[in-house]
Amino acid sequence: MTTALSPTRRTTGTRESARAVSERHRMMALLEDGLVGHLGVVLSTGPTDGKAGATHPVVLPVAYAVDPAGPDAEGTLYVHGSTGAGWLRSAIETDMCFTVTELDGLVAARSGMHHSMNYRSAVIIGRARSVVDPDERSHALDLIVDHMIPGRSATLRAATRKELAATAVLALPLREASMKERAGGPVDDPADIDPAVWAGVIPLRRVALAPVSADDAPGPVPADVRRRAEDLA
Amino acid sequence: MTTALSPTRRTTGTRESARAVSERHRMMALLEDGLVGHLGVVLSTGPTDGKAGATHPVVLPVAYAVDPAGPDAEGTLYVHGSTGAGWLRSAIETDMCFTVTELDGLVAARSGMHHSMNYRSAVIIGRARSVVDPDERSHALDLIVDHMIPGRSATLRAATRKELAATAVLALPLREASMKERAGGPVDDPADIDPAVWAGVIPLRRVALAPVSADDAPGPVPADVRRRAEDLA
Repeated sequence: MTTALSPTRRTTGTRESARAVSERHRMMALLEDGLVGHLGVVLSTGPTDGKAGATHPVVLPVAYAVDPAGPDAEGTLYVHGSTGAGWLRSAIETDMCFTVTELDGLVAARSGMHHSMNYRSAVIIGRARSVVDPDERSHALDLIVDHMIPGRSATLRAATRKELAATAVLALPLREASMKERAGGPVDDPADIDPAVWAGVIPLRRVALAPVSADDAPGPVPADVRRRAEDLA
Repeated sequence: MTTALSPTRRTTGTRESARAVSERHRMMALLEDGLVGHLGVVLSTGPTDGKAGATHPVVLPVAYAVDPAGPDAEGTLYVHGSTGAGWLRSAIETDMCFTVTELDGLVAARSGMHHSMNYRSAVIIGRARSVVDPDERSHALDLIVDHMIPGRSATLRAATRKELAATAVLALPLREASMKERAGGPVDDPADIDPAVWAGVIPLRRVALAPVSADDAPGPVPADVRRRAEDLA
């Protein structure tokens, strides 16, 4: 947990290094804030339409959780999915890329060129391990539920053997990672700065509305759900 | 604009088809709602650390815009970046994947297995074309500014030749595309439904706060910026 980010060339950005964040604890905070990541894998297609087979990237949104004390030296990121999902199976034991982005604002400058967005983004590249140990699998699935609603997993029945058998759990070491952040106002070319032309930021944030109970759940909203909604409100 | 989505096997989901959305106009509406997409490309690395070269996916957040009447039959998606960004250059004339996800809620069920999220996600796969025509380049860059703040580009000076030379613009046909959506409450196994255990949804949305003027912009917030912030409020 004490190493810097970007230990390899693959996750060492060569551009806009002013936006690079090297403190690992800030990436961990971003991964805590995020709810959905975008998982990129390389898929192979067989020959079709008279063309030879080829590879192409696929990027899909996934839920996730982080275990800072997971089995990998710098922490472990877990994702899960159906064992029937071919794209997820194909990510096992090959390099994948997992990206989490939080959007913080729209940045309006005096030129189109300098329009930008305020954001925080973490990019993790690595070889995914299929989690087979039953205890680690259950732990990872509980973490994914608790990442959505902290404390929720302890209020639920245990997963059944059948549910566990239908679920693939992948672990990605939080080792090859990089983070970028843009914050603050527009950066205009000096020649463009004209008090008559407005520039500034529209701040953005994600908020929760009041929890909506299911039709067959007449009871009160439990404390963990209320707390989560209030934290995001 | 009248074709259905998912014309190829690459963008035809095989799982959870109940979530598949086949109406193209709904994908166009999602692309209009989204502000950031995640662009996945396949990069090659030279030999390092005594290991042979290999490919790996990279997924990065990017601004974008859509031209429903663009040069491609079903509309064109534009992204831009620095001409110095190797990852973007490497996406030209190869297959890339562009994914936009809007998160609409956290879905709490009675079992961990049925916890889920409400979301809308569009996945577009295709071969990116480098936009070289000066008019199309300017048009695409204006669209990207206007996607952030509708009407903004008309209030700005034109891009300089130097700015245009430093900017790569890529076009992706909106042809091979798929969309998924999950909405509504939790779907529990019938045996799990117990009025004593709460289940429901925490709705999520992205909101804008009041625009913040740059220190060197003393004038009033212009109408287009105010309108954008109010639309997202």
